[in-house]
Amino acid sequence: MFMHNKRLQYTVRVGETNPALASLLLEQFGGPDGELAAAMRYFTQGLGEDDPGRKDMLLDIATEELSHLEVIGSIVAMLNKGIKAQLSEAAQEEAELYRSITSGGDSHTQALLFGGGPSLTNSSGVPWTAAYVDTRGEPTCDLRSNIAAESRAKIIYERLINVTDDPGIKDALGFLMTREIAHQKSFEKALYAITDNFPSGKLQGVGRFTDVYVNTSQGEGDMSGPWNAAPQFEKIDELAEVMPADEGDGTATVKLSRPETAAAKRVAERTASDPANDAETGADLGAGPGAGKISGGEDMGTAKDIKTAAKTA
Amino acid sequence: MFMHNKRLQYTVRVGETNPALASLLLEQFGGPDGELAAAMRYFTQGLGEDDPGRKDMLLDIATEELSHLEVIGSIVAMLNKGIKAQLSEAAQEEAELYRSITSGGDSHTQALLFGGGPSLTNSSGVPWTAAYVDTRGEPTCDLRSNIAAESRAKIIYERLINVTDDPGIKDALGFLMTREIAHQKSFEKALYAITDNFPSGKLQGVGRFTDVYVNTSQGEGDMSGPWNAAPQFEKIDELAEVMPADEGDGTATVKLSRPETAAAKRVAERTASDPANDAETGADLGAGPGAGKISGGEDMGTAKDIKTAAKTA
Amino acid sequence: MFMHNKRLQYTVRVGETNPALASLLLEQFGGPDGELAAAMRYFTQGLGEDDPGRKDMLLDIATEELSHLEVIGSIVAMLNKGIKAQLSEAAQEEAELYRSITSGGDSHTQALLFGGGPSLTNSSGVPWTAAYVDTRGEPTCDLRSNIAAESRAKIIYERLINVTDDPGIKDALGFLMTREIAHQKSFEKALYAITDNFPSGKLQGVGRFTDVYVNTSQGEGDMSGPWNAAPQFEKIDELAEVMPADEGDGTATVKLSRPETAAAKRVAERTASDPANDAETGADLGAGPGAGKISGGEDMGTAKDIKTAAKTA
Amino acid sequence: MFMHNKRLQYTVRVGETNPALASLLLEQFGGPDGELAAAMRYFTQGLGEDDPGRKDMLLDIATEELSHLEVIGSIVAMLNKGIKAQLSEAAQEEAELYRSITSGGDSHTQALLFGGGPSLTNSSGVPWTAAYVDTRGEPTCDLRSNIAAESRAKIIYERLINVTDDPGIKDALGFLMTREIAHQKSFEKALYAITDNFPSGKLQGVGRFTDVYVNTSQGEGDMSGPWNAAPQFEKIDELAEVMPADEGDGTATVKLSRPETAAAKRVAERTASDPANDAETGADLGAGPGAGKISGGEDMGTAKDIKTAAKTA
Amino acid sequence: MFMHNKRLQYTVRVGETNPALASLLLEQFGGPDGELAAAMRYFTQGLGEDDPGRKDMLLDIATEELSHLEVIGSIVAMLNKGIKAQLSEAAQEEAELYRSITSGGDSHTQALLFGGGPSLTNSSGVPWTAAYVDTRGEPTCDLRSNIAAESRAKIIYERLINVTDDPGIKDALGFLMTREIAHQKSFEKALYAITDNFPSGKLQGVGRFTDVYVNTSQGEGDMSGPWNAAPQFEKIDELAEVMPADEGDGTATVKLSRPETAAAKRVAERTASDPANDAETGADLGAGPGAGKISGGEDMGTAKDIKTAAKTA
Amino acid sequence: MFMHNKRLQYTVRVGETNPALASLLLEQFGGPDGELAAAMRYFTQGLGEDDPGRKDMLLDIATEELSHLEVIGSIVAMLNKGIKAQLSEAAQEEAELYRSITSGGDSHTQALLFGGGPSLTNSSGVPWTAAYVDTRGEPTCDLRSNIAAESRAKIIYERLINVTDDPGIKDALGFLMTREIAHQKSFEKALYAITDNFPSGKLQGVGRFTDVYVNTSQGEGDMSGPWNAAPQFEKIDELAEVMPADEGDGTATVKLSRPETAAAKRVAERTASDPANDAETGADLGAGPGAGKISGGEDMGTAKDIKTAAKTA
Repeated sequence: MFMHNKRLQYTVRVGETNPALASLLLEQFGGPDGELAAAMRYFTQGLGEDDPGRKDMLLDIATEELSHLEVIGSIVAMLNKGIKAQLSEAAQEEAELYRSITSGGDSHTQALLFGGGPSLTNSSGVPWTAAYVDTRGEPTCDLRSNIAAESRAKIIYERLINVTDDPGIKDALGFLMTREIAHQKSFEKALYAITDNFPSGKLQGVGRFTDVYVNTSQGEGDMSGPWNAAPQFEKIDELAEVMPADEGDGTATVKLSRPETAAAKRVAERTASDPANDAETGADLGAGPGAGKISGGEDMGTAKDIKTAAKTA
Repeated sequence: MFMHNKRLQYTVRVGETNPALASLLLEQFGGPDGELAAAMRYFTQGLGEDDPGRKDMLLDIATEELSHLEVIGSIVAMLNKGIKAQLSEAAQEEAELYRSITSGGDSHTQALLFGGGPSLTNSSGVPWTAAYVDTRGEPTCDLRSNIAAESRAKIIYERLINVTDDPGIKDALGFLMTREIAHQKSFEKALYAITDNFPSGKLQGVGRFTDVYVNTSQGEGDMSGPWNAAPQFEKIDELAEVMPADEGDGTATVKLSRPETAAAKRVAERTASDPANDAETGADLGAGPGAGKISGGEDMGTAKDIKTAAKTA
Repeated sequence: MFMHNKRLQYTVRVGETNPALASLLLEQFGGPDGELAAAMRYFTQGLGEDDPGRKDMLLDIATEELSHLEVIGSIVAMLNKGIKAQLSEAAQEEAELYRSITSGGDSHTQALLFGGGPSLTNSSGVPWTAAYVDTRGEPTCDLRSNIAAESRAKIIYERLINVTDDPGIKDALGFLMTREIAHQKSFEKALYAITDNFPSGKLQGVGRFTDVYVNTSQGEGDMSGPWNAAPQFEKIDELAEVMPADEGDGTATVKLSRPETAAAKRVAERTASDPANDAETGADLGAGPGAGKISGGEDMGTAKDIKTAAKTA
Repeated sequence: MFMHNKRLQYTVRVGETNPALASLLLEQFGGPDGELAAAMRYFTQGLGEDDPGRKDMLLDIATEELSHLEVIGSIVAMLNKGIKAQLSEAAQEEAELYRSITSGGDSHTQALLFGGGPSLTNSSGVPWTAAYVDTRGEPTCDLRSNIAAESRAKIIYERLINVTDDPGIKDALGFLMTREIAHQKSFEKALYAITDNFPSGKLQGVGRFTDVYVNTSQGEGDMSGPWNAAPQFEKIDELAEVMPADEGDGTATVKLSRPETAAAKRVAERTASDPANDAETGADLGAGPGAGKISGGEDMGTAKDIKTAAKTA
Repeated sequence: MFMHNKRLQYTVRVGETNPALASLLLEQFGGPDGELAAAMRYFTQGLGEDDPGRKDMLLDIATEELSHLEVIGSIVAMLNKGIKAQLSEAAQEEAELYRSITSGGDSHTQALLFGGGPSLTNSSGVPWTAAYVDTRGEPTCDLRSNIAAESRAKIIYERLINVTDDPGIKDALGFLMTREIAHQKSFEKALYAITDNFPSGKLQGVGRFTDVYVNTSQGEGDMSGPWNAAPQFEKIDELAEVMPADEGDGTATVKLSRPETAAAKRVAERTASDPANDAETGADLGAGPGAGKISGGEDMGTAKDIKTAAKTA
Repeated sequence: MFMHNKRLQYTVRVGETNPALASLLLEQFGGPDGELAAAMRYFTQGLGEDDPGRKDMLLDIATEELSHLEVIGSIVAMLNKGIKAQLSEAAQEEAELYRSITSGGDSHTQALLFGGGPSLTNSSGVPWTAAYVDTRGEPTCDLRSNIAAESRAKIIYERLINVTDDPGIKDALGFLMTREIAHQKSFEKALYAITDNFPSGKLQGVGRFTDVYVNTSQGEGDMSGPWNAAPQFEKIDELAEVMPADEGDGTATVKLSRPETAAAKRVAERTASDPANDAETGADLGAGPGAGKISGGEDMGTAKDIKTAAKTA
């Protein structure tokens, strides 16, 4: 059961109102790496977890993230406090209010639709979605997802710190950023407290494919490093060797029942494409009266013939 | 530039059609951990990456994931080949077709809307969204996200293998699952090829908060482990100590300009809540003629009085 | 700042596992009227609220809704506990597992993607979105939205109670449903503690339009009642009277600058539709060789001629 | 069946073009409280309603909202008429066109993607979603939702009026705003024409929980009012009393079958977290060569030690 | 299977960085008519297609669209290269960085959340969704959808060309735009290579309804042309003739079973609306003390009485 | 302005209730090719259109589509009328109601969340989104999009007809399907009434690229037809010729300012990947105690070595 104390986890001291900055900070309120995403990721994991240590940790951190949501939301509310009041009291001329709410970012929607309160959107106004939550109910996956999520949240805070010069906001953001570092460390510890955590799950892979690296992107810029070379990896440069990677012919087949085969044949006949049928098309009809051939009008470009270009290259 | 060869990366041999199984496999075609998500995660990272080694690796793996998208989509197409033909030719009685498309999972929508082709949805029919792609443009984050994503994709394949008894499908899924393991290893190698990769980004955290663990969830089940205890962590059990964590008073404040203050005062007065005003409400109006008090009618429950319960607890 | 105690607000006793029922209950976990929606509605309002009484109430109820989220999520986790374990251990034959996860509702996705944990989706698998949260930052709107939201949440719980025969689940759902009733009453009280709460906001409407009812849907079934008749309303049956409702001509106009006018003229000429140009179309080209006129083939229907029908009607 | 007359319900006279203002007005075209949301809310309710009076009213108001959608869309079209023509004719220098479409709000997308026509998005460009429609098929809920929705729509119009100084637009917005007031009154009348409308649905709540108020948010700022105090409510300040609210132990349990128990045991063993295993982690590996401990580098902050801070507080 | 060569399909030469322009170009990276949408539309069609000619064409064009995605994404990456580096190194003063990322469009989110890499969103920051992909598995539909999609993509490129004065970008966009024209022509040819392609599918329509045009929008502005008049169409102006279009009474009916009828009767009674019950409402309660009637306060408007207006009109 | 008559455009006679069938029909109520999508596509085009003929046609057809939305929604309401009443009155045993709402498709959510009314979702429960509306404000695009949309809607109706054996529903669906055919013909006529409608917009393409077909997908299955061969097209098989298609080197470049260059250099150094640094990774740490190498445990597969396979292929 949750309880709440009205004191924030970190004191919020905002120097002056600024709706455009408020809209940027929403990235950590209702954005994909924001505090709601964090809280819900750990909370859903905690509810589904049976291991007592992990369950406890997940609920601890989920709860702290809710407190962070409160801190960042409070900063947003402070930054919007002026426009909220002035818009609802029509306390300025229309033209001034118009300028105030179109001063940058997504502040216009924050003012008009959300009335200056913190909204669960990102800095573009995209509503938060649970699609951001990647809980999968397998601890070695979920902990890796948490580690990654904390590192992402850390970097978003760092960027916000870099664009803010209000010392009170910078200070609070620094606290929040640091807590993400601490949480990442907890999740790392928890991952490695599971003796055998790689690969995730129970099945080992097919041995002959686990250390193969397929060099599918070739040309100038091809590189070699520990991620694709010995001793860990065998690198396949000759793609024909893995097309397919098994001993088959690389096609897709299915056994159809007799009625399925019959129906498939009928649909094939009905919708057959006749390669010999070079018919007039709708585009021909619409290409305009003056043109001898489609798109043959005035050329917008200046580049040379494609063949020439190819030869030159 | 991309090129394509019509041979698949792995041969697909499906034993018989099964639209309901097809709808399950969509999880790895258009689901959050599916192959499109993987391809787009690495492709967007690769385009924004300047480090030559990582750029090469990201484009290699992105391209391979597109080939995996083709394999899984081909399995889905094979499993749906019968219903696709029969529905478009109305080759059965209506009642039989109705039964065929409501045989389980999300196969009804796959047949009706997508005509039996592979759709970029998950197994519930939720359209794929780029909200699944967590590329942030900072390599130490992105590689961690990739590691986590590969571990998630691996586990989804494992679950699909567990519910399928078609040997051809199992075989192809095993290949795809194994490649996720190999990719995770590449991303691990690439992460640790960056000398200093923790914490992500440039800023260190605030020293006094980096090794604190706030025990926000308490009661029976409180546990201790390396994720919240010494030597790494100092665990705070007395929450009043971190309410707030700084030396302030835990409130949120902002300095308002004079006109902002005036407007704020007016809106406060206009919308003031009067605690002494215990007025009749809309609910009172609507609570029905027979009841002496709201909700006082027949009680649906059988539990004892809350106070008694609380005392017993 | 939030704190958590590991005891639930209501004890959860589930009789037996049932993944399909679990998927139905998600409606109140990650659905539009579910507990996360409730918690976030009140929490965002509370952060943006300055009135001390309302702020306190909003944070109280937001916090309680988080505890409800925990209760409903715990029921889901219990119902899925069997399939979660069996799927991850592959503890049954594939065919049995396949049958287990396709037993109804959206349970297949819950098992495959979310591993049996509670997911922030509704009962169809649609991810929760902050688009459900209708906080607008004006208390007389927001309280009305809260009243409505509580009544919706109440009815969903009632429906879930009606389809469940597990006494432990019924009991917990009854508690949760009742709390929605109690919250609705609090919000009603709070709305009427604002002396002048209708219409919302500061502006009165235009007097001559506030008590007009436009009878736009006519024909058999036209009704009269206090919602459209005297003494409150003047009902307009003759729609020509309100087409337009002002003294204008009912058109839309704008003053264009000279260059805008010139550009508009050019685009009009370039894309002009020539009513005299009854050209052959792409559909004509594609209508098939045998047909004298488009769609003139075999008629699928049996109904009589439309003119005849019209005359009969 | 619907019919349409080309005259608008209110004459639209726009003084001059302004794409940025157009993008703000989209809030009421394709936003959550906009006219499409209103029309679809009442239309879906009307189709599912059997009570003749309510059905008639819902179709009347749904139809009028479609006419409002036409009015607001026409204003948007007028405001964009210049940029639409100039962009499609390339009637200015590129740099001028670039400046025109980046003049504020979301006008760039409106011009580039929607070509200056009214788009079904809100002022941030978020596409309209039926998730905004909260029809539940129970009249006492739906009418409350309608009342709330009308009050929200009213306030958005009020805010738009406050930021516009074009008299023709102000005039039309005033009409639209007023109609929302009138509709709210109709829905209120219709709600109270149902004799017993509270609580919604058929089930009464559990008596002992209907008048309890749980004071979950405590600390400085705790308030009392009719929404949480006698005579209506009994306020619980001692949270231990409602943890849990029933006579149980506040845990979640389920009875597992024998095979489920066995599988659960195996998964627990396989993924057990070993609290004694304080292993080296990926973060340790990546923390950089120079640091004696993780995050021990240069401290970004200036705040004092957390313990000191806590003691000071 | 896909392969990749590191050379782009078209050389990208960007004159100078410009994050705001980058955000506009995202329309063709992650927008509804962008290159990912194109690639996925054709790829999903190709996987589900059995006709060898169309399958080959669809895979050819899908693959080329992936190469276009790479070109447009590379332009975006180049335009953002400065802000990416400066933001991650905090290489400017906070205030300068703040100004840089709020210079227009959606560039703030691109910098903060995506770190300057190309994101799969449109120019408003809306994440790409597979809802954009309208593959239906029926070739005569899908080819028409492709034709339409190519024409839309062409026009978006044209608009982008019109707002850009960087010659390198203009050049690359011109190439991409032209390829859409070429693809449209291929799809036109493929559509007409199906002998009988109209109407789509197997069923002909009901003969008496296929050439009827219902003139549902009437009044000043009613027009006639080949789209609604003879020889193709019979135009119905008298709407009563098609209300309904069949010989029935235009109502909706269903046969209910006996228990269904009984339940329907009970719910009707319980929720009956009493037209005679003109009760006091929640709005009455909240209309404020001073007003004799609801909304009777100060009138915001200046327009004349609606009746008068109507008569004048 | 819109008006409504209570008679439907087509009489709805449903034989018996069937919630699962109702959920399938939602595809045309709130699905991507459903009637709301159609109505909104044409309505938004009509509002932005200045050409009188097209404007009239678009509003005519938009209005008719709203009437179709009413017809299909009425069928859904009839099919759900039994479950709606029984669920709200709890008129059956819980277990029976549970079975009724889990009888197939998405009927469970329709009953629980939407109470049996027609909801604006597709047959999977995905909420309707304006992302389905592809209005672009250029008539030659929009008409092509309309032609395609009508052909898609036609095919979905055909599929629904194929799975329904209720004659009344079949009859109404046949009417709706036929009207889509008629609308497609109107849009075709309107497209070709624009004299020069190809390519869309004002700019011609770059001449040397308009008739090139790039054969990017090669291998067995390569085909030739009018869509990629002479006389219309020049087919490029040698992909090196179009890599790049211009005379450049196929790279992406941008000119950076001096401070940008400096920052870029710093970030490159800080995050450099060291190809020589084959460090131990997190995966190594977690690979379990017994294994000599990662993933070296029990192999799940049976396939032969990849090299062998490749050679055999």
